Amino acid sequence: MIIRELLVTPIAFRDPPLLNATGVHEPLALRCVLRLVVDGGVIGLGECGGDRSQLDRLTAVAPALAGLNVLETTRVARAIDAALPGESAMGRRAAFSAIEVACLDAAGRLLGQPVVSLLGGAVRDAVPYSAYLFYKWAGHPGSTPDEWGEALDPDGIVAQARTLIDEYGFGSIKLKGGVFPPDREIAAIRALREAFPDHPLRIDPNGAWTPATGRRVAAELDGILEYLEDPSWGLDALAEVSATARMPLATNMFVNSFDTIAPAVATDAVQVILGDHHYWGGLRLSRHLGTVCETLGLGLSMHSNSHLGITLAAMTHLAAATPNLTYACDTHYPWNLADDVVKPGVLRFEGGAVPVPEGPGLGVELDPDALERQHRLYVDSGRQVRDDTGYARRFDPGYDPALPRW
Amino acid sequence: MIIRELLVTPIAFRDPPLLNATGVHEPLALRCVLRLVVDGGVIGLGECGGDRSQLDRLTAVAPALAGLNVLETTRVARAIDAALPGESAMGRRAAFSAIEVACLDAAGRLLGQPVVSLLGGAVRDAVPYSAYLFYKWAGHPGSTPDEWGEALDPDGIVAQARTLIDEYGFGSIKLKGGVFPPDREIAAIRALREAFPDHPLRIDPNGAWTPATGRRVAAELDGILEYLEDPSWGLDALAEVSATARMPLATNMFVNSFDTIAPAVATDAVQVILGDHHYWGGLRLSRHLGTVCETLGLGLSMHSNSHLGITLAAMTHLAAATPNLTYACDTHYPWNLADDVVKPGVLRFEGGAVPVPEGPGLGVELDPDALERQHRLYVDSGRQVRDDTGYARRFDPGYDPALPRW
Ligand SMILES: [Mg+2]
Ligand SMILES: [Mg+2]
Repeated sequence: MIIRELLVTPIAFRDPPLLNATGVHEPLALRCVLRLVVDGGVIGLGECGGDRSQLDRLTAVAPALAGLNVLETTRVARAIDAALPGESAMGRRAAFSAIEVACLDAAGRLLGQPVVSLLGGAVRDAVPYSAYLFYKWAGHPGSTPDEWGEALDPDGIVAQARTLIDEYGFGSIKLKGGVFPPDREIAAIRALREAFPDHPLRIDPNGAWTPATGRRVAAELDGILEYLEDPSWGLDALAEVSATARMPLATNMFVNSFDTIAPAVATDAVQVILGDHHYWGGLRLSRHLGTVCETLGLGLSMHSNSHLGITLAAMTHLAAATPNLTYACDTHYPWNLADDVVKPGVLRFEGGAVPVPEGPGLGVELDPDALERQHRLYVDSGRQVRDDTGYARRFDPGYDPALPRW
Repeated sequence: MIIRELLVTPIAFRDPPLLNATGVHEPLALRCVLRLVVDGGVIGLGECGGDRSQLDRLTAVAPALAGLNVLETTRVARAIDAALPGESAMGRRAAFSAIEVACLDAAGRLLGQPVVSLLGGAVRDAVPYSAYLFYKWAGHPGSTPDEWGEALDPDGIVAQARTLIDEYGFGSIKLKGGVFPPDREIAAIRALREAFPDHPLRIDPNGAWTPATGRRVAAELDGILEYLEDPSWGLDALAEVSATARMPLATNMFVNSFDTIAPAVATDAVQVILGDHHYWGGLRLSRHLGTVCETLGLGLSMHSNSHLGITLAAMTHLAAATPNLTYACDTHYPWNLADDVVKPGVLRFEGGAVPVPEGPGLGVELDPDALERQHRLYVDSGRQVRDDTGYARRFDPGYDPALPRW
């Protein structure tokens, strides 16, 4: 169970031009793949964001991991804290979060147990995900249009939803908003409601609206939204919206660590937290978050960034182990799965849900050729950080990402 | 990892005449010893209260456990809930709590891992406990005086503390109060402070004081107590005391499940929760409680009832895995260890702390002869329930356990 070394491989994968409140997804998304080599040669897998800062953190902490026990993740956290003395708490947590998943994957492989069992066992055999809709261009400028097509109005959004639902069977829908003036996005939600009368609907403008706008949108979409995610910027603004909104407000932006929960509860700013094991300290602490939310009467959902299969497997094990994670989880996976680095066959959607992988650990295997291919793409790209705003400015030099916008 | 059957053995063990707010410990304390037999013959151990109601619950749920996986404790909880349809939530939780420990012991043995590793790993190699002082008679009426001697005044309490500290090295002291008028117990605390100037001190009258009395005692012991435990009855009364007390208030009586935390926080009734895996849903959920307390800025300590070595081992694994359990834990173990049913050698106090057992699972082994001996004592006693008040009334027919008393 003893860690020998950590190998960190930055990768890039193709990403469509998905729009959000601060820009556009670039043609390549960046991630890091972690291989935690344990005595005896077993390898635990992890996946996390690929910005230079995270890559540097992981590289810096790797030597401190040798000799630690993969099951003793609290000690791993302390070693990481000690190895990153100048780093922010959020940065240290991001490094630990990625490594903790690799620890539990290795532990599960060594013990012959799926990760979900190490977290208390599955309460559901498959984890429902939501169709994650984005406004998008037809393709990246200068490239041929992608398979998804343009989605810049209600018809395009409904068509995109239909594509995703036909292919994956999703039973819930989330729209990434904050891109167009709120009335245009309200119209898209109304069109979705008409086209999919029984699908729970959410919209997430990433804090793009003033509290007054947030209140107005909440009133207009009363009875239509399952929850309203991060309508405005900051907990004070969310509390203002929450005071009149009749649906739950949700957040992943302004409650993103255990010490940000109590202030949100004190003002009843949000009623649903979107957890994310990449930010909350890995799988075990994310499982604790479930109990925290239950204790405080908060709903629990799950956030996603652009990701591949190691992350999807980790999300699925965690969600399967968390009784009160009753909302369908977000996932970007359908947008990016063509470039996955895990061997196909294990991860699949059945009726919008991913069956919990049954093998030991996370239950997914790395495809070494795919890893090499995506690492090569990373190296050749010269990319170091995600920059949605910079990419938007290449086509609109005056693009201003300041929020709130409306 | 599959459960075959659960064997539940009620036992009795000798207990000195320890006084509390509602009576006197009887000559025999009751517990249940659980042996969870897993495919392949590995046995997981558990220990819990021995009242008839708990014994009946365990007997009732036993058939529902066969076929479940010991690592999948959330499913075990659901099976227990389903098997006890008429039972209170607290009763179901008590049954699950006991069985969950046996599940994790079995899992650890099967996987070759100590339970602490299954909980995230040890953050301390040994767990500090407090010297748990009791007012007591010299012996049970009609019996010869016991080895501990009488402790009914400050000198007796200080002598008892010295005995416990000399023998075990405890670095903290807790006095079970609520027995005598508050000024007499204040005098005992002052005497302890004089005799042990550097030992953190606590007193726990089990809700025996009115809020006004609680406020007065808190004022008199300002600067002397580490925390004041359950001075008054109920959260409202505790909130009244808390409003003027300068030391933290602690409770195990009125916050004893996740759904009782939020009301206590809302009124700032207490600042420290004493967890107890027997009541909070076993070891995994008790570990979650650590994160809940950290999230809410609550301190965390650990409660104890009369117990033997299986429970001490479980408490030690849990406390070792919980970073913010920074108070010394309570334990009755020194009062009862002579009748333990685990083989000697593993559990020991070094400087007031119990080193975390290193073997797989809980790391303790059952002594079959001792189990038989204590089970025989149980059967021969004809005892079914703990009744401190009834025992007190045998010697003082007018004894009135109603609280608050002062
Ligand atoms: Mg969001
Ligand atoms: Mg108490």
